[in-house]
Amino acid sequence: MGNPADTTRNHAPRDHMHGGNAAPGPGRGASDAGTLVDEHRDHAYTADKDALLKRLSRIEGQVRGIARMVDQEKYCIDILTQISAVNAALHKVSLGLVEDHIGHCVVGAARDAQESGDPQLVTDKVQEATAAIGRLLR
Amino acid sequence: MGNPADTTRNHAPRDHMHGGNAAPGPGRGASDAGTLVDEHRDHAYTADKDALLKRLSRIEGQVRGIARMVDQEKYCIDILTQISAVNAALHKVSLGLVEDHIGHCVVGAARDAQESGDPQLVTDKVQEATAAIGRLLR
Amino acid sequence: MGNPADTTRNHAPRDHMHGGNAAPGPGRGASDAGTLVDEHRDHAYTADKDALLKRLSRIEGQVRGIARMVDQEKYCIDILTQISAVNAALHKVSLGLVEDHIGHCVVGAARDAQESGDPQLVTDKVQEATAAIGRLLR
Amino acid sequence: MGNPADTTRNHAPRDHMHGGNAAPGPGRGASDAGTLVDEHRDHAYTADKDALLKRLSRIEGQVRGIARMVDQEKYCIDILTQISAVNAALHKVSLGLVEDHIGHCVVGAARDAQESGDPQLVTDKVQEATAAIGRLLR
Repeated sequence: MGNPADTTRNHAPRDHMHGGNAAPGPGRGASDAGTLVDEHRDHAYTADKDALLKRLSRIEGQVRGIARMVDQEKYCIDILTQISAVNAALHKVSLGLVEDHIGHCVVGAARDAQESGDPQLVTDKVQEATAAIGRLLR
Repeated sequence: MGNPADTTRNHAPRDHMHGGNAAPGPGRGASDAGTLVDEHRDHAYTADKDALLKRLSRIEGQVRGIARMVDQEKYCIDILTQISAVNAALHKVSLGLVEDHIGHCVVGAARDAQESGDPQLVTDKVQEATAAIGRLLR
Repeated sequence: MGNPADTTRNHAPRDHMHGGNAAPGPGRGASDAGTLVDEHRDHAYTADKDALLKRLSRIEGQVRGIARMVDQEKYCIDILTQISAVNAALHKVSLGLVEDHIGHCVVGAARDAQESGDPQLVTDKVQEATAAIGRLLR
Repeated sequence: MGNPADTTRNHAPRDHMHGGNAAPGPGRGASDAGTLVDEHRDHAYTADKDALLKRLSRIEGQVRGIARMVDQEKYCIDILTQISAVNAALHKVSLGLVEDHIGHCVVGAARDAQESGDPQLVTDKVQEATAAIGRLLR
């Protein structure tokens, strides 16, 4: 936010540093980056990308269904029930992303901080995650 | 709920009681409206139907945008921020429907109850509305 | 809100008019209690006042328990779980008040509006209720 | 959860592993802290304990105030407004605890995992944190 690069930043910025990494997915092992969590980190939610995309496509369909209900002038309580279902589905998606973020980005930053000796990296990631969770709680 | 007719019940169930009413849906006009609230009641959210449909179409687009972000493996915090925006937009839609429902269905039921001498009508509507609000609060 | 009388206004403002009231106000109607909802209206949540007070006293105790957990430096996840329990308990209290408000104040206003011929009364109450619900949804 | 020690587990479970550590609780100091985050970790929210306790005591007072409003039969909308204020205050407390938990327990587990070679430690902590956040979102 406020960062012009925001719109293009992606989930695993460290990928860019890995250059010609030929490692075949998870289980790259300690030899590569010397740490336990590294292998998870580069995947994060992208491991579940298909499941996530399927969920979001279902939510999109639910929203379209709600519009159809409005168009057909269905009973408002029934429409509200459908909106609650979308809320619940979005919450599940959010939680999945929060879990991935903490488990990969924050944990990755913790490792980097330990290696680099600069704890600010973690503090920033943690504050960023907390702010995002706060927006979800509203 | 539990009522097989649920899926087809529409916003203004009283229309069904109006028997031989040949009027094509909302906008029956003042002639039929013997009371202050009646004319509003048959419209309810349908007065703002276009605005509501526009909002829902925007929300649908937002959800599609989130799927695109996932597909492009954008940074998870940015995705969470977009989900919060969808949550907020859905809350606005919900609140609008709640306001319409209370202002039309509940108020209409209050009038009917007074005319018919059966307060159960109101009690039912109020409980139904409260249950829907409870689902929104989760 | 913005009304200096807010801090002292009570649940059933019409009570104050009852005394030796010659009812110049919103058409209480000839027989005074001759309407269906009137008797409930003057009570509203006060019928369940004891139950409500008991709930709130339990919530107060829960909050005190959370402070004790913090003081004893209990595990933060366990504290968060207790906070979730308080949230849920407060939501139940809120919903009960919303139900009472709609079932009594809004429905009462609907009746008054019909008698007085001034629908603004209802519109105001409905907007006020919706705004309060919106604050609960945040 | 499911752990019989739950009721007495405290914020910094690692203390228990420290064996013969004679240090009286938090504030063990840097001598023991071989890493960047360790010293924070043993404190976590206890650093802000006073502020947190003050907040919770204010919330307790707010809940008591709501009970008083009910007892005096104040207007239900005004009571709902106060409940929303308590909700908001509790959310702030929750978020503070979430931030502390991620920044200390999760980050600490990440370090331990790296040292011990057992990534399960992190996975467990992350899932536990996510579950707690999910309960806050409801």
